[in-house]
This record gives sequence, structure tokens and C-alpha cells, in this order.
Amino acid sequence: MSRYLSRFGRGLRFAVLGAGNGGQALAGYLAWRGFPVRLYNRSAARLEAIRERGGVKLEGRFEGFGRFEAVTSDLGEALRGARVALVVIPASGHRALARAMAPHLAPGQVVVLNPGRTGGALEFYQVFREQEVHPGVTVAEAQTFIFASRVVGPGRVRVFEIKHRVPVAAIPAGRTRTVVRLMRRGLSEFVPAAHVLETSLANIGAIFHPAPTLMNAARIETGAGFDHYHEGISPAVARVLEAMDAERLAVARALGTRVVSAREWLQAAYGVVGSDLYTAIASCSAYSGISAPDEVNNRYLSEDVPASLVPIAALGQLVGVATPAINAIVELASLATGVDFFAAGRTLERMGVAGMTVDGLWQYVLRGEKIFAASGKEAYSGSGAW
Amino acid sequence: MSRYLSRFGRGLRFAVLGAGNGGQALAGYLAWRGFPVRLYNRSAARLEAIRERGGVKLEGRFEGFGRFEAVTSDLGEALRGARVALVVIPASGHRALARAMAPHLAPGQVVVLNPGRTGGALEFYQVFREQEVHPGVTVAEAQTFIFASRVVGPGRVRVFEIKHRVPVAAIPAGRTRTVVRLMRRGLSEFVPAAHVLETSLANIGAIFHPAPTLMNAARIETGAGFDHYHEGISPAVARVLEAMDAERLAVARALGTRVVSAREWLQAAYGVVGSDLYTAIASCSAYSGISAPDEVNNRYLSEDVPASLVPIAALGQLVGVATPAINAIVELASLATGVDFFAAGRTLERMGVAGMTVDGLWQYVLRGEKIFAASGKEAYSGSGAW
Repeated sequence: MSRYLSRFGRGLRFAVLGAGNGGQALAGYLAWRGFPVRLYNRSAARLEAIRERGGVKLEGRFEGFGRFEAVTSDLGEALRGARVALVVIPASGHRALARAMAPHLAPGQVVVLNPGRTGGALEFYQVFREQEVHPGVTVAEAQTFIFASRVVGPGRVRVFEIKHRVPVAAIPAGRTRTVVRLMRRGLSEFVPAAHVLETSLANIGAIFHPAPTLMNAARIETGAGFDHYHEGISPAVARVLEAMDAERLAVARALGTRVVSAREWLQAAYGVVGSDLYTAIASCSAYSGISAPDEVNNRYLSEDVPASLVPIAALGQLVGVATPAINAIVELASLATGVDFFAAGRTLERMGVAGMTVDGLWQYVLRGEKIFAASGKEAYSGSGAW
Repeated sequence: MSRYLSRFGRGLRFAVLGAGNGGQALAGYLAWRGFPVRLYNRSAARLEAIRERGGVKLEGRFEGFGRFEAVTSDLGEALRGARVALVVIPASGHRALARAMAPHLAPGQVVVLNPGRTGGALEFYQVFREQEVHPGVTVAEAQTFIFASRVVGPGRVRVFEIKHRVPVAAIPAGRTRTVVRLMRRGLSEFVPAAHVLETSLANIGAIFHPAPTLMNAARIETGAGFDHYHEGISPAVARVLEAMDAERLAVARALGTRVVSAREWLQAAYGVVGSDLYTAIASCSAYSGISAPDEVNNRYLSEDVPASLVPIAALGQLVGVATPAINAIVELASLATGVDFFAAGRTLERMGVAGMTVDGLWQYVLRGEKIFAASGKEAYSGSGAW
């Protein structure tokens, strides 16, 4: 990638795409650290208060002001000269953003999804192929968003927590090293994952968000107000989550990828243990006070179903692992919201891996090459070329 | 059937099988009306208070005492000399009861399920075939239970409401007339339905019970206490119910059977109208104060899933109608309770109709004859012979 470096100079410029709770925190932090940052948001309205102030005030874990080089709803302007584009929008918007970004990208640029949920990098990579983006553009996805943060007022964002470890992987996997090196200049918490199947299948939100929302649907809609985790995940709900988690692990295993279970993750992240998932969640004090959403059709469904559960089920199909629990939740979410998530979500086609064998999928995530069992259907060669 | 009449004499003797809220009310009412009644319950403990008193005290819509000829946990004793056996137990117990009854039945006896849910009569009929019960025994199912009633104390049962119309059908359908004639001597509300597919698919509990239970699972388990209908069926929940109801209607339509929709039923039963199911239920004052169950694994799941949703989905398979919404609820109920309802419920095999064409199914419910597309697999002929 060094051949492209001169284009961007020594100063590492970031474009942060999305000015929500996450984007404002990430952009503000990087600007506060002294990096040139361009903040983009599709809707200009959300940028007004920030543009007036020239940046955002950081609170909580960081205290200071992050001044931006640009605050814009012009994607081309945001991406110009940025070595790294950090995508910080709901995954349900990934596809549209990828298409919108395509004409503005230049070789050497690195696009990192924060996070990709499941199949985010695959979907971006496929859109970039279709749009004939230069193969020198790199796509990567983080497994989780680095901060717990919230916009607390006009131009004010509070960072509650910083994750210790944020695995990230590029497609093809050989480019992960470059991505990590760039990210760590601003954020030392980024560590390499083996490949995008690992970051994609280590998706705990897929397990913890949609099913409790559906199994508390009337409680949400009658405005009762309750804690998503401690009141919303009762033993019967937790049994559903465990079945979904077992399916996620089975899909990962069939793909030759090791990911931790939801219970193992709770232990690693919060030090809680329990004889079952219900007990572990119930004893996790970090979850106290996390309110359930106040409407059923919120990001726990609109994002986690199409961009987490649907692609896990789709990858299950590819490897021949049935996912009846996940499918039931996708179906129920579709009925409750009126959105056909199986059709609207990340299918194998949208991830660009339909018709692949497991071996072919591995070749693809490792080398970026499409190899199909039925030869001649599509054929690419060369590392990272498409 | 007149050839068997002498066996039972002129006095119409009833056996009431099951001494719960329904069985005590039905047995008490018939005894109070002067019919000889034998009350059976599998567990003797539940019969103690009744045996001490020799019957039950009726309250509410009827005031009086119903004295029983026998109060027993011996099925043979209960059935001896009874012309009509009224089955008033949860449908999840139908199969075991049918097997237990088989050795004690005699030609001319009529077994009526109150109600059969979906496929109850078919399942009884199949068990009786397998157990080589005499073909002179008739099986029928009521579409609903005639009373709304509750045991209010030892030997005391209160009848809140009497349904105006209780459709009933026998298999084969030609025997419905005899069943109705017998039932109307005690209960004038019984009216003939065309066949058991009609009584089975007019199952509104299948729509109103399981999905709201699952979509309020955590609220139930945290002991919040709420109205099943008015607080438990919010707009998102009602959308799921409408999808399930549309599938039920599609299965019925494919079987050439006309049943009313849940909304039409609400209008007919309670006079409520609404632009959608949510509005109709919300404006149904008859549903005020009907508490949600206080545990997830209650009859709304343990009975309505295996004996209502599973057989509707199974009949859908027989006629090639997909039931994704119903399947999702069955799957979720299985995960939440740990019971594999698809395996444990009323499959086509248990209903004795696996491998039938739609025409074959019609022949079966009308004439009691099994005719398979793959001829030679099984073949019966003669009205009601098996």
C-alpha cells in the first residue's frame, strides 16, 4: 500500500461518516487528539449545532474540544484527502452509503465500518466491486464500536466507556495489518482479527437485542418502561437467546471460525458467570439501568435483524447449518414491523458470496478472489483485484 | 345407530371426563337438569371434595346442586352405561385419554370433545382405529366450550356465561346428526357443523393465546400482572396475530372450508368492529380484566401450540399453504418452554391423515374412509368402518 501513501501525505486525515452518538464521539476524540477530521452526515440538520461551534465538546472519559477540518453533508468533500473513512451509521444504511461513497473513493483509502455487524465488510466490498471502485481501496470492519457514548446536548457528546479491545479485519485479510497500523495511530485499542468472518460472527448484539424486544413488544408499546436486560430478559427469553447463540456458534464452527459464546463474552467483558445465560445477565451490574427502547421498531430490530440475524442465517444456509431459532425471530420481527427482513436484509447475494462453497468463501475473505464451484460463473484473480 | 340404543336404555347417561373448571360445570349442570352423570378425573385428589358432597354446587347463571351417579378416577367405571362421554380436559391430554378410553368403549357410545381445538376428533378417531375400537363408537368435537366457568371453592363451580351456539361435528360427518340430537337433549345450544375440518379450523384461541403470551414473556415472568387482551395485545402483537389468522384462513380456504376471521368473529361474538384487529380487541369490553397467565408455560402455550397451531400448520403442509407466522410462534414456544412442539403436537400422522390428498381428506372426514393417492398403502371402505 506504500505506493499510495504519498497521495495522503504524512498527516493522517480521518473522515467520520455519521454524526450520531458514535460518530460525534469518535470524530471529536480524533480531532481532540490533533488529527485532521472531516465529519459527514447525510442530513445537514444534525450538523448545524456542530458547524456553528466548529466542533464538539467532549465530556466524560475525555474533557476537551475537538475542532473539525470540515463539517459537511457533501460526501465527496468529506472523503477528499482522507486516508481513513470511519463509517459510524446504523448498518441498515450501509448499503446506500457504500453506493454513495463509491464515486468519491481513491486508491489507498481505507474504509472501516464501526462496527460492521455481520457481513458489513462483505456487503461494502461487493458494492464496491459492482461500482468498479479501484481495488486499491480497502474495506474493513470493526467487531464492535469502540465507545459507549451519547450526544448530551447541541455540540456536546459524552463518552461513558472505552472498550479495551476492538478486533478489526479487512477483506482481503492480508490488508488487515495496514488497517490496524493506521487505526492504532489514533486508537490503540484496535487489534487484528483473523478475517471478516470472525468479526462478523462475533456479533453479540444479534443475540441480545432483537429477541428481547419482540418478547416484550406489548410492554414496550404500552409505555411501561423497563430495563432491557434485567427486566426484559427473563428465563424464557434467555432460553430463546441461548438457542440463537448456539446456532451462531454452529455457523461459525462450520465455517472453521472460533467465536466465543454469549456467556463466555459476558465473562470476558464484565467478569460475570452464571449456570445459564439468564443468571449471567441477571448478575451483570453493568446492564443496570439500560432502558428498553420506547418503540418496537427501533434499531434493535431495524438494524440487528437485517444486518445481524439475516446474514448469520444466510451464512448458515451456505454451510448447511439450520438456524430455526434465528429464523423465527427474523420472521416475527418482519410481522411486527411490516418489513420483510429476509428480503431486505443481508442475503448471500448482497454479501457477494451466493453460490460459494465453504472453501470458496475462505478464498474470498482471505484473498478477495471469487471462486465458484460452478466454474465460469464469475472468476477473478490477483490479490485484491476485482 | 338405533340398533345400539337398547344397550343404553331411554335415560341419557353422561360420562364427564375431566373435573376442572369446565368439567365440573358441565357435569354439575347436566346432573342438576336430572340426567344421570358420572364424573371422572385422572387424579383422585381433585375429586375428593366432590365425592364428599356427592356432587357440586352451581352458582352464577344456574343456582342449585348437581348430584352425580358416580365420582371416580376409574375410567371404566365412568364410561359404563354412558351413552355420551364428554371430554373436558386440556387438548394436550387428548391422546393419552383416547388410548386409556379405548378398551372401555362399546358400540353406540358417543365421545364428544369439548372442545377439540384443531384435529382433536381426527386424533381420537385415529387412536381408536389403532386400538381397534368398535366402529360403532362415534367421535365428535365441539368448536368451543359451552360455558365460561370457574371452580370457586371445594365442590363449588360458577358459570359466568353460556355460549349461544356451539357447533359440533362428528367423523364421519354423517354421524353429526345423531350427536347433535343427543347433545341437544341436555344442551340446546349445540348445532351441527359441516365436518370436523370446519370445527377444527374455526379455532380462534390458536390466534389469541400463544403469540401474546410469547410477546409478553418477560412481563409474565417478572410478575408484572396485566390484562392479556387489552395490555398484552399491542399494535405490533396484533400485526402478528393478523398474519397468523390470514394463514389459518388460507389453510381453510385451500381445504374448501369457510371459517370466519378473528375480526369477523369478534364482531359476531361481541359486536365490536375495528379498522384492524388491534382496534377491535382494544374496543372489546368483554375482554376487560382477563388477566394474563402468571407463568409462560401455561395452557396458552402447552395446549394451544401443540393442539391448535401445530395441526393448522400440518394441514397447511397437506394442502401446500405455507404458514411462516404460525411456524415462527411454534418455534419460539418450543424454545421458551423447552418442549419440541412440532414433534410433540398434532402432526398429520397423529391426526391419521399423513399422505392424503385434499380429496382423500374430504372422503375421510365425510365418510371415515382412508383413501391414499398411493393406492394400496392403506384402504378402508364402508361407512364408518375401520
